[in-house]
Amino acid sequence: MNGKISKSLSIENAKELLNSVDAFLFDCDGVIWKGEKLIDGVPQTLDLLRSHGKKLVFVTNNSTKSRKQYAKKFHSLGIPVNEDEIFSSSFAAAMYLKVNDFPREKKVYVIGEEGILEELKQAGFTALGGPADGKKNIELKSNCLFEHDKSVGAVIVGLDQYINFYKLQYGTLCIRENPGCLFIATNRDAVGHLTDLQEWPGAGCMVAAICGTTQKEPITVGKPSTFLMDFLLQKYNITTSRMCMVGDRLDTDILFGRNAGCRTLLVFSGVTNESTFQDLCKEVQPEYYTNSIADIVKVYYNSDTRSTSREVFSSMMTIANG
Amino acid sequence: MNGKISKSLSIENAKELLNSVDAFLFDCDGVIWKGEKLIDGVPQTLDLLRSHGKKLVFVTNNSTKSRKQYAKKFHSLGIPVNEDEIFSSSFAAAMYLKVNDFPREKKVYVIGEEGILEELKQAGFTALGGPADGKKNIELKSNCLFEHDKSVGAVIVGLDQYINFYKLQYGTLCIRENPGCLFIATNRDAVGHLTDLQEWPGAGCMVAAICGTTQKEPITVGKPSTFLMDFLLQKYNITTSRMCMVGDRLDTDILFGRNAGCRTLLVFSGVTNESTFQDLCKEVQPEYYTNSIADIVKVYYNSDTRSTSREVFSSMMTIANG
Repeated sequence: MNGKISKSLSIENAKELLNSVDAFLFDCDGVIWKGEKLIDGVPQTLDLLRSHGKKLVFVTNNSTKSRKQYAKKFHSLGIPVNEDEIFSSSFAAAMYLKVNDFPREKKVYVIGEEGILEELKQAGFTALGGPADGKKNIELKSNCLFEHDKSVGAVIVGLDQYINFYKLQYGTLCIRENPGCLFIATNRDAVGHLTDLQEWPGAGCMVAAICGTTQKEPITVGKPSTFLMDFLLQKYNITTSRMCMVGDRLDTDILFGRNAGCRTLLVFSGVTNESTFQDLCKEVQPEYYTNSIADIVKVYYNSDTRSTSREVFSSMMTIANG
Repeated sequence: MNGKISKSLSIENAKELLNSVDAFLFDCDGVIWKGEKLIDGVPQTLDLLRSHGKKLVFVTNNSTKSRKQYAKKFHSLGIPVNEDEIFSSSFAAAMYLKVNDFPREKKVYVIGEEGILEELKQAGFTALGGPADGKKNIELKSNCLFEHDKSVGAVIVGLDQYINFYKLQYGTLCIRENPGCLFIATNRDAVGHLTDLQEWPGAGCMVAAICGTTQKEPITVGKPSTFLMDFLLQKYNITTSRMCMVGDRLDTDILFGRNAGCRTLLVFSGVTNESTFQDLCKEVQPEYYTNSIADIVKVYYNSDTRSTSREVFSSMMTIANG
């Protein structure tokens, strides 16, 4: 299906998609919410999918929160989501170190926010930097050496609203001067909906800044890297062809889904709209596209005007669940 | 000469170089000084070259100062240099706008320091940003729109010790949302000797950050772009083959010299040392290399132990000035 022309989500293909998918993987920013605001119709969609036995997984590149903090956010928005249904890039960064046997005596320098620090702590690693370095200033003076910890063995870079020259120098020195120091990017999203009304610089901004000084490329653990998918597959006994990745970004979400062999659905409720999609979709094509995930419910309700919407949906879900 | 293997500066080739060069173009950071400290032997070298009629030009990618501020720095270090012998990337950025008839009613947003603002003012342009935005904080709130000036027609990005999320968002919005807005990089040096003892993130860091959010590439006006050279050539009636570019960086200084058809001399008194040179020199080869520009004087003084050093130098300069 990848490589073929994308199709708008219709009654027919929505039916087929439901029928052949056991798990829906949702991006969060621009799909579930924008900043602190839920996107219309999301709770109904998730409820219906869940009540019909579909597994739901939330895969977010936003590293500012930990899985625990994301679970709280979901609850505060009235959506019951379990911590282990969430796969954030902050979690992925900590898991990357764990999987690769990062030595416990080494430290991790963080250009990023609380989420990364919390996941590192949960995983038993010692972290430096992050919010604590957000107000540190540099004074450039002769005969003064800016010292950095030689036991830092990894620098993790994610979205950081408190990015400053101190952190840029600290991270750069670790990567350039500590032998074998890893350079890990939670993700490389150019921008993200940090507020409901507009986009803001994403982790791709901070990561590029460190690439600019170190002239090195990072290991990326978030979407579209398949690293997170390995965790999903360990946890859920589902083949990737029976998963559908739903996201608002072609270069992270849809590419992530395609790289893993998932079905893919692009929504226009986030950074991609119908007009930018026409320009961008040449390289990465989603299988389907629609305005928002609320359309999944709308499509069902309107599929047969002779039945009541609820009845139609139920009968479709019966088909879908075989 | 370019493309051939680089040679260490010796008595013979120094003689030939002097003989065939009318103007020396010097990079500053890592060649003349490191941070606020002069490199040993520099005043003597400059004095001797000047006293023998060589034109001296100082070409720096460091945009934090204006030409006027650089002239002051030279004087404070005991080196008499005229403002119009200095070609800084801050000046280049303002000149780029002038040459390209940037409309006077449009504004320029600056991610950078005082030097860029001063050069823009000198050239009659209206600037926003720079140090004034260095302490601005962002509060991410629902229903709040971060506003930017729609009359900004160019964003200039240079080295900025006070880089923050506010400036990154402001610059990004102008480039992404103001139709036709230019994205100008003063330069893209990864690091620079902002202090004598170590390197710090260079403009390449801030420029990469904006590339990361806008997914656009800038117009670069400093080295190695040939834009500055056009000004030099307008001013000095010398063919580029009779100029020698002296610098500490292969990817800016030496490339700049080579792009323009100048002779080139790499010095190890800045970011490149003998060992990194062996790794890096495959792509960009200088014609000659030596430890520091003080070697030019040393080579002359030691060229004939039977004469006094001063006499030897004088006779060599006579030949050189033919």
